[in-house]
Amino acid sequence: MPTPVKSVLPVVLLGCGGVGRYLLRHIVSCRPLHANQGVSIRVVGVADSSSLLVAEDVHSSGLDDALLTNLCAAKSAGSPLSSLLGQGKYQLFQNPEARSKVIDAATTLGRTTGLVLVDCSATYDTVSLMKDAVDHGCCIVLANKKPLTGAYVMLLISSFSKSTYLINKCIFLLLQEDFQKLVSNFRRIRFESTVGAGLPVIASVTRIIASGDPVSRIVGSLSGTLGYVMSELEDGKRFSEVVKTAKSLGYTEPDPRDDLGGMDVARKALILARLLGQQISIDNINVESLYPSELGPDKLSSKDFLESGLGHLDKGMEERVKAASSRGNVLRYVCEIESTGCQVGLKELPKDSALGRLRGSDNVVEIYSRCYESSPLVIQGAGAGNDTTAAGVLADIMDLQDLFQKTA
Amino acid sequence: MPTPVKSVLPVVLLGCGGVGRYLLRHIVSCRPLHANQGVSIRVVGVADSSSLLVAEDVHSSGLDDALLTNLCAAKSAGSPLSSLLGQGKYQLFQNPEARSKVIDAATTLGRTTGLVLVDCSATYDTVSLMKDAVDHGCCIVLANKKPLTGAYVMLLISSFSKSTYLINKCIFLLLQEDFQKLVSNFRRIRFESTVGAGLPVIASVTRIIASGDPVSRIVGSLSGTLGYVMSELEDGKRFSEVVKTAKSLGYTEPDPRDDLGGMDVARKALILARLLGQQISIDNINVESLYPSELGPDKLSSKDFLESGLGHLDKGMEERVKAASSRGNVLRYVCEIESTGCQVGLKELPKDSALGRLRGSDNVVEIYSRCYESSPLVIQGAGAGNDTTAAGVLADIMDLQDLFQKTA
Repeated sequence: MPTPVKSVLPVVLLGCGGVGRYLLRHIVSCRPLHANQGVSIRVVGVADSSSLLVAEDVHSSGLDDALLTNLCAAKSAGSPLSSLLGQGKYQLFQNPEARSKVIDAATTLGRTTGLVLVDCSATYDTVSLMKDAVDHGCCIVLANKKPLTGAYVMLLISSFSKSTYLINKCIFLLLQEDFQKLVSNFRRIRFESTVGAGLPVIASVTRIIASGDPVSRIVGSLSGTLGYVMSELEDGKRFSEVVKTAKSLGYTEPDPRDDLGGMDVARKALILARLLGQQISIDNINVESLYPSELGPDKLSSKDFLESGLGHLDKGMEERVKAASSRGNVLRYVCEIESTGCQVGLKELPKDSALGRLRGSDNVVEIYSRCYESSPLVIQGAGAGNDTTAAGVLADIMDLQDLFQKTA
Repeated sequence: MPTPVKSVLPVVLLGCGGVGRYLLRHIVSCRPLHANQGVSIRVVGVADSSSLLVAEDVHSSGLDDALLTNLCAAKSAGSPLSSLLGQGKYQLFQNPEARSKVIDAATTLGRTTGLVLVDCSATYDTVSLMKDAVDHGCCIVLANKKPLTGAYVMLLISSFSKSTYLINKCIFLLLQEDFQKLVSNFRRIRFESTVGAGLPVIASVTRIIASGDPVSRIVGSLSGTLGYVMSELEDGKRFSEVVKTAKSLGYTEPDPRDDLGGMDVARKALILARLLGQQISIDNINVESLYPSELGPDKLSSKDFLESGLGHLDKGMEERVKAASSRGNVLRYVCEIESTGCQVGLKELPKDSALGRLRGSDNVVEIYSRCYESSPLVIQGAGAGNDTTAAGVLADIMDLQDLFQKTA
């Protein structure tokens, strides 16, 4: 006898490139598994940066699996959503109409069947959409760190003079409010994949907090790229060589400075700090960049940085690695979140600690609390990759199922 | 403005000794934190092995916090629940009436406000109560492994002759059905604290499964006692000395053979195997005992085992440790769960693996799946202790809150 459907979760997905595409594949391939648990995920809309594909009647049906499979193939081949025209029962809207259609769906479904708005994009543009969705009673699931970290303001600030400090501060306060707004009903928001991809970091911290066990400290290596780079340096390799190898292995962003600058780690640290209740913004975090501003993107092209700039960093890094080694330690690029503050940068750590033993591109997080005081709770594993990140997003969606239970 | 109460969770607690007592303390001390999240935990009944203390009107109110605090003090001093007579508005029932009153509460509340039945006892007697509660629509949270593992039958078997094999097999089948029944609505059951205390092992495996990522293998050191013993042996200490030290540190059961026999680890392994969908019973697990049957409880008193029996095991253990060391390995007492079977016992492991590096009484679990294939997801930390176990139970209760949301 088939399991009766207990929960139907309508989903609108923003961003169907890497992670979003894997998510759609996972949703389709998990149909039998989820049906067995009485859960049906109904994808009613999918948006990329220019258009929205939405089911004709979002109340009664979703986009069918054949269409979703074609959509994945199209996106994989680099084609836009609009290339799918004429393949099924749906409507296609272009921006800016697409955005208002997402809000329409959120308004219609949020207060009736419910809706999960999933953000697998990598833009700053989804914040207001997310806030509207929350207002309409929707659930939200994020793989995108940016709506939770308001880093956009950092870009604004760097183009402002110091005299505009007060204005910037006002913007920061608004962004802290953005975060508060998004997590105001924390049972309706999930964002596991924003930190350590599918690793159960947020879920574990949330459990510890819910049990009244106060988290005093989190230390983590949350960049697979920088984890790889720092552990390779131990073997005496040159920094510039290791970074180039990491790039050739696909571990880095197209411009490795996006990793070496530490801002990605800082955003993850900010999410964890805010999870612990700290009302801080990205500008409250001390971030150590592994390259000086003279070698920054506004001074040097990516090509020039790799070919000539990077080599200038070898000597300094070699000296730091050797100095640490002489003390029996290793260097790791970590975030540290404590009640007294939040830092991101290189740290000397004992070779035989969980962080010191780290090799390759795994992430490691150590969580200290009353229950995990002398010996931390440690979570380690692959913390990047489209497959793993999408798996984390899907686990988050499934974790919302109790809010979508059909009343008997 | 205070947060409006969104979820009220009525709770009946079975077992208020160690873990249960800590749970009640945590519930009382977390009131402000939970209120801030819109959650109220209403303890409507508490049972020990002989009686049940239940609120006068379970629909409208719970036992008050002053009474719960006195209850913790009384149990801590070794007094029975009945010593609290006359301290507040409640009814006290003795067994066997107590049991039927728990079912009354489950029947009344299960289909109206809902009820969380929490099992922090250590008996086999709660299975039928749990099954009844599930029938009445209640949620259940377990720290007690026994209802999930049906190990009682093992005791029956050992006192039966081989000719009763068929009868035993029938009992086993029933017990597999018990498990299926308890987890038939898996959103209504939580049992994190049955494996690794508060460590997020079950929660993590559940997330991985929900995301359609097939778990191929779980390897773990799930006994703090045996973890401590095996890591101390590396320093050349004698097995008998290490076991006695572990006992004096309070790491072992009163009779250390309860740890050394491996049945506690086997029960945890069975829970993990069943979580992966394996329809097996405890008799399908190969369990290596660290003492031979000649030194078993039916042959030797606990005192005699410690004073004379234990020493006979030193030589054999020393040889195994040395042999492993000569190959660059260490011995660990682990459970291994794979699709081909489930084993519990000593295993030689590389010194530099997550399990090989383990020192002290921490638990470690390695989970392998498609996303964590070459490098496993590792979870490590304290896996025992009343405080930590109770924290895991409370996190489980809080995780059920969406099923108790007030409709607006």
